[in-house]
Amino acid sequence: MRVYVAGVGLTRIGRLFDKGILDLAAEAAWKAIDDSGGIIPDAVVVGNMLSSSLQSQDNLGAYVAAGIGLRGRPAFKVEAACGSGGAAIYTGVSLIASGLAGSVLVVGVEKMTDFPNAVVTEALAQAADSEYELFYGATFVGLNALMMRYYMEKYGVSRDEMSAWPVLMHRNGAVNPYAQIRREITIEDVARSQVVADPIRLLDSSPIGDGAAAVLLVSEEVAKSLPEKPPVAITGAGMSVDTVELSNRETLDRIPAAAEAARKALEMAGVRPEELDVVEIHDAFTINAVLLLEELGLAPRGKAARLVAEGKFHPGDKPTANPSGGLKSRGHPVGATGVYQVVEVAMQLRGDFPGVKVPGAEKGLALNMGGDGSTVTVHILSRV
Amino acid sequence: MRVYVAGVGLTRIGRLFDKGILDLAAEAAWKAIDDSGGIIPDAVVVGNMLSSSLQSQDNLGAYVAAGIGLRGRPAFKVEAACGSGGAAIYTGVSLIASGLAGSVLVVGVEKMTDFPNAVVTEALAQAADSEYELFYGATFVGLNALMMRYYMEKYGVSRDEMSAWPVLMHRNGAVNPYAQIRREITIEDVARSQVVADPIRLLDSSPIGDGAAAVLLVSEEVAKSLPEKPPVAITGAGMSVDTVELSNRETLDRIPAAAEAARKALEMAGVRPEELDVVEIHDAFTINAVLLLEELGLAPRGKAARLVAEGKFHPGDKPTANPSGGLKSRGHPVGATGVYQVVEVAMQLRGDFPGVKVPGAEKGLALNMGGDGSTVTVHILSRV
Repeated sequence: MRVYVAGVGLTRIGRLFDKGILDLAAEAAWKAIDDSGGIIPDAVVVGNMLSSSLQSQDNLGAYVAAGIGLRGRPAFKVEAACGSGGAAIYTGVSLIASGLAGSVLVVGVEKMTDFPNAVVTEALAQAADSEYELFYGATFVGLNALMMRYYMEKYGVSRDEMSAWPVLMHRNGAVNPYAQIRREITIEDVARSQVVADPIRLLDSSPIGDGAAAVLLVSEEVAKSLPEKPPVAITGAGMSVDTVELSNRETLDRIPAAAEAARKALEMAGVRPEELDVVEIHDAFTINAVLLLEELGLAPRGKAARLVAEGKFHPGDKPTANPSGGLKSRGHPVGATGVYQVVEVAMQLRGDFPGVKVPGAEKGLALNMGGDGSTVTVHILSRV
Repeated sequence: MRVYVAGVGLTRIGRLFDKGILDLAAEAAWKAIDDSGGIIPDAVVVGNMLSSSLQSQDNLGAYVAAGIGLRGRPAFKVEAACGSGGAAIYTGVSLIASGLAGSVLVVGVEKMTDFPNAVVTEALAQAADSEYELFYGATFVGLNALMMRYYMEKYGVSRDEMSAWPVLMHRNGAVNPYAQIRREITIEDVARSQVVADPIRLLDSSPIGDGAAAVLLVSEEVAKSLPEKPPVAITGAGMSVDTVELSNRETLDRIPAAAEAARKALEMAGVRPEELDVVEIHDAFTINAVLLLEELGLAPRGKAARLVAEGKFHPGDKPTANPSGGLKSRGHPVGATGVYQVVEVAMQLRGDFPGVKVPGAEKGLALNMGGDGSTVTVHILSRV
């Protein structure tokens, strides 16, 4: 399978009080259309989690498509919690591969500021199980804290070893012009930062921000008709789900949905994990990154944090992990994140990502997750 | 294109205080799986509008899929307001036609009772534009009232002519065991019923109810491998959007997205409107049905209500419209409605719909709408 990336667009992520949800979506969408040389897409897929809770706006597919001038074609919203962006890409790939559309604009967008933090925290917690988790007072960070505590105890991993990840992310993100937080931090900064839900500290956590990302996907036929054939394609797509409630998982130190989604995507693309030059993975919290590196087969169980502390996955290594700065530093506008990742990997392969570069990258992977590993999408991108 | 309908399942629609959203989804899903002879689907697509607003539950794809025992495969939610079910079917068709899945379970589900009416009304209004309509006090029924008033004045259509539609719907729905409201009404009942938003009266309006519908779609390859090849397939799929806010439409007596979605679906299926034996269309309010019959080319502009009053579209006529009783009588569990329609048309073609029958039906159409015509999906089903 080859679904070509004909255009990409990003907004800077931040607390953008002067921009509404449609402003953000339009900025990214028009950038992607411009980048493609002006392709007007046959269909629009919107990845978003929170518009119903925060903007009192459903019907977001028509809202965004018609709002940016694209009436008269299919458009709908795809929701999979923090994995909404990846699920929207998956849906866009499907629309192209099915022949229902020759070109699809996938827009991930989230507007999270303008609200008290407690309102946003409650809305985000809807990624967990409302009857079996939230009703009992669990928060989303609290559930991730259970996973981090279990992992650190089981494998004897220290606080400072875990901290190597956010330190690396801030170093990468510091030079990404689209990133929300562009400053370096130290191991000591992490250790001294406020406890949010023990053992998760503030500097283990991705920030709340607004942003939008867009990608214009086209079929082989449309790609051939362009003045220059796009150099990058999505060649593998995988998705898998697990129980939303943590209590029904077999163990807290595994994310089986990630392993399964990656297996499918890599198999479809005919790529082995060791061939990957660059990966963008879902580090909403430090523990997510550590577990996902292990599920991808890039680190042995219990070893990922230590490997990061020893320099593995840093710029120059293969694969380089999250040269964007990841959710921790680039930011995590939830329903947009999965689209940011695909755009960033595509730009690495094109050679025009404006932050930390992965020179000569040929193959990349984007992994987006919803809930505590309940929904995972993986896309493989290749130079073609 | 041929995407086979291998199994279908419905719950009765009603005020089902003893059932949660997962109970409903599971009942319909397992019925569809049983009906297919036990096919375990490769992927799950959930159509739903209100789970975020009413159940504080996002991540509904994983929630439903894992909740009914289907981990380890793709699952996500598709939202397009009251058109969510149709958009979920469209997505399911796409996943099959793309080859990403050989079998897809599409579940439409909505749990609307257990809440004060004002809460549900506000949640439903999110199908309209929150900044340009809701903020100024518009309700969803109020916006539809503008369309009905404009239509009646422009074409000189009387109250009693409009009432012929809900009277027909209640007559059809009275014998549908899945319908929410199973009793006949008269022209006088409609005229005497309470005004909700002039000229829309209570008996012009679909009820609030809980329900779930499921359909198991399979590829040609899977269909061939079954003991008996399913007799019905989706042979055309079309979707189109328009501005969410009514104020930017060209006129209030047209639904251009419906005409466009139908054009695409009919063309794909190679079917002309006059060949249709049965249609299930989206009559959330009487005015919707009247306008949609005209957009489908089944009635001249300004004439649909009068034709219904004269006996057109009744059982025995070609096409028979809404033998289920439609949204008015069968009910309108919003995100499930589009899936109900596809199931009902499939059962008519199979010959096992348990209410008003359309004997010998070969070709049918299902039209699901979101907002005031901002999102429309059309699917053509054929005996194959």
